Amino acid sequence: MLDVDMRVKQWLQLHRLKGIRLLQRLVQENSISGHEASAQAIVVEKLRELGLQIDIWEPNISNLQQHPYFVSPRTTFVGSPNVVAVKKGLGGGRSIILNGHIDVVPEGDISGWELDPFSAKIIDGKMYGRGTSDMKGGSISLLLALEAIQALDIPLRGDVIFQSVIEEESGGAGSLAAITRGYKADVAIIPEPTNMKIFPKQQGSMWFKLVVKGKSAHGGTRYEGVSAIEKAMTVHHKVLELEKTRNATIHDPLYQSVPIPVPINIGKIYGGNWPSSVADEVTMEGRMGVAPDEKMENVQKELEKHLALLAEIDPWFKDHPVELKWFGARWVPGTIDSEHDAMKVLSKHFTKVKNRAPIIEASPWGTDGGLFTQVGNIPTIVFGPGTTEVAHYPNEYIEIERVFDTAEIIANMIIEWCQ
Amino acid sequence: MLDVDMRVKQWLQLHRLKGIRLLQRLVQENSISGHEASAQAIVVEKLRELGLQIDIWEPNISNLQQHPYFVSPRTTFVGSPNVVAVKKGLGGGRSIILNGHIDVVPEGDISGWELDPFSAKIIDGKMYGRGTSDMKGGSISLLLALEAIQALDIPLRGDVIFQSVIEEESGGAGSLAAITRGYKADVAIIPEPTNMKIFPKQQGSMWFKLVVKGKSAHGGTRYEGVSAIEKAMTVHHKVLELEKTRNATIHDPLYQSVPIPVPINIGKIYGGNWPSSVADEVTMEGRMGVAPDEKMENVQKELEKHLALLAEIDPWFKDHPVELKWFGARWVPGTIDSEHDAMKVLSKHFTKVKNRAPIIEASPWGTDGGLFTQVGNIPTIVFGPGTTEVAHYPNEYIEIERVFDTAEIIANMIIEWCQ
Repeated sequence: MLDVDMRVKQWLQLHRLKGIRLLQRLVQENSISGHEASAQAIVVEKLRELGLQIDIWEPNISNLQQHPYFVSPRTTFVGSPNVVAVKKGLGGGRSIILNGHIDVVPEGDISGWELDPFSAKIIDGKMYGRGTSDMKGGSISLLLALEAIQALDIPLRGDVIFQSVIEEESGGAGSLAAITRGYKADVAIIPEPTNMKIFPKQQGSMWFKLVVKGKSAHGGTRYEGVSAIEKAMTVHHKVLELEKTRNATIHDPLYQSVPIPVPINIGKIYGGNWPSSVADEVTMEGRMGVAPDEKMENVQKELEKHLALLAEIDPWFKDHPVELKWFGARWVPGTIDSEHDAMKVLSKHFTKVKNRAPIIEASPWGTDGGLFTQVGNIPTIVFGPGTTEVAHYPNEYIEIERVFDTAEIIANMIIEWCQ
Repeated sequence: MLDVDMRVKQWLQLHRLKGIRLLQRLVQENSISGHEASAQAIVVEKLRELGLQIDIWEPNISNLQQHPYFVSPRTTFVGSPNVVAVKKGLGGGRSIILNGHIDVVPEGDISGWELDPFSAKIIDGKMYGRGTSDMKGGSISLLLALEAIQALDIPLRGDVIFQSVIEEESGGAGSLAAITRGYKADVAIIPEPTNMKIFPKQQGSMWFKLVVKGKSAHGGTRYEGVSAIEKAMTVHHKVLELEKTRNATIHDPLYQSVPIPVPINIGKIYGGNWPSSVADEVTMEGRMGVAPDEKMENVQKELEKHLALLAEIDPWFKDHPVELKWFGARWVPGTIDSEHDAMKVLSKHFTKVKNRAPIIEASPWGTDGGLFTQVGNIPTIVFGPGTTEVAHYPNEYIEIERVFDTAEIIANMIIEWCQ
């Protein structure tokens, strides 16, 4: 009889077309926030086929709103179910959570797409469509791994908990709901698009808004006013100064090839009403990166304090301090010890399947892994088949080969981890 | 018999309440662009009472659109009449145009107003309401001057041409229509809110839009993108550099007390879509001041050339040049020789009525006087009772005393000029 690795490989080869078809069906359901039900139905159908114990529920927003880590622009999750399936182990083994999010970001300006964003067409080994990389491809890797183990009847002592959650793209309310519902494990894997790199650390992030004041005047006598646009430039400069000092303190080898490990990005600016008037208010909206080991509250205080220094370089800010608001989405940072046994097991199987050592890095963005780490106390590794470069952009795609490689690596990891 | 100056003064005193009532009625008609007819009807009623020859017409927009100086956001002037009344002289005298605009800017955010913007209420000698200063108060000064001369039956040899025009606030299509209809005179007076200063020179202005390009990227890897917000700051800085060099060349004594005679104001900024993305485009909208003796085309070229220099300081702009568009409103600059006889006559009567010499300055903003000068070849003086500080703002008002002082000064000027 073949050893278990080979049996998994063979099973995946034999079931390749079915796996591709399943991914296509999932991509063809546009599951933007608030419209996840039909895509979840396809996941549930597969889970039923596997004979697993399934938990489907619409998270209760009033309960979640009490939670300090809850973030969401939504007012209800009615019609937006979370799905969890448990494959109970025989007992005495280590457990694992396999977590993927079902929500996708909007397709955006359709004119940028060469194919229908929900065609799931395959060209040269790549499947195109919104959500292929982020992260339905990854979720299919998880389902294939699970199905292979079920089909091959490989005995596991630990539990395997598969989760298809809502709301990752808006700050993780779906995973938070799964954690507060009581789902726990010794480790979690999230196959977000890492380009098959292994991320033991994930950067967190929070959105902020800076309201900069000026004083209106007619443009012909602009010296009688104070331009909020000019003041906004001073503020922008000051914020980048903080980015510099913050990043100078990061010496984590996982960040050694990253120019700015924890960026502060000001992504949006608007202010002023009239070309002929001096702008009396400008708003800038940005994203503050949070290092894997930082507390979000501390980072918030750091920005607050730094903005207060503006009064030293320009007395205007003494009487007109910049208003700082934390708003919208946030992603909690996460970290797992690089020497954690789950890291070793995953790396080992990566090396066996891919015939090379994995690249281990820290993620430049947040995932639900932060909530698993900080709220659920579950060490989390992010590792998936998609690529960030195409996520959230037109013509998003995934290389199909990688979906199966990832499935194989994760199946082998589960088998060893939960044995 | 009293001399003519005293008779004018007395007549104005005797007809004070009627004059105030007329101004109130005019202010109570909200005459924003496109809704000038009811206010014009009040003007026409008064002109009929004076027994003048009246010309009422809706400017033909298709004809005006052929004119190089035509600027307007409108597609038709149907329902928006211009009104001109001519008091024919006995012959052989110098003629004068008295020009006021009937359009007002919108009242804006109502919460800023302490009274209804169209109440025309009088408190402590000030009448409150949109358009009191800019410039229905000035137009009433003109009508009172004209009425005094008619009522006192003072013989004039030159023609007096009274104009109540539309569209000053959007670039002067109403005055342009009056000029192209053939109304000419040896001088024009426009009682815009100069705070009773005399402006022989008026700054022109034009609106521009700068589109600055960046390169999008995820905020967590912002170093992979190029921030259009940061690039916009470089552009803003470069534009202010041009303002500095342009103003360094202005030595006109009329500007000696003005910190920046011909400002370039960037009044509006917007760009970027998402706090977590690097902004790939930022637009800035501004107003370029044009010195009284400058040609607008030359000033446009100056800005174009200066923006081209950006490529020298930052190679990004070589491949991604800033897009410059001239859009929206523009006001042609205007100038009359400070030694022009009309300046002397006006200054003389100002001094007699106010018992002090007038302040003579250059205006920081454009008026229809630019069109009179450059298109109609009619030297124009801007002199009126309102104040710029309140124009276009909530709680706009005018000091009633000044409306009558201005009427008296202008009546005396007309009598001498047209005698």
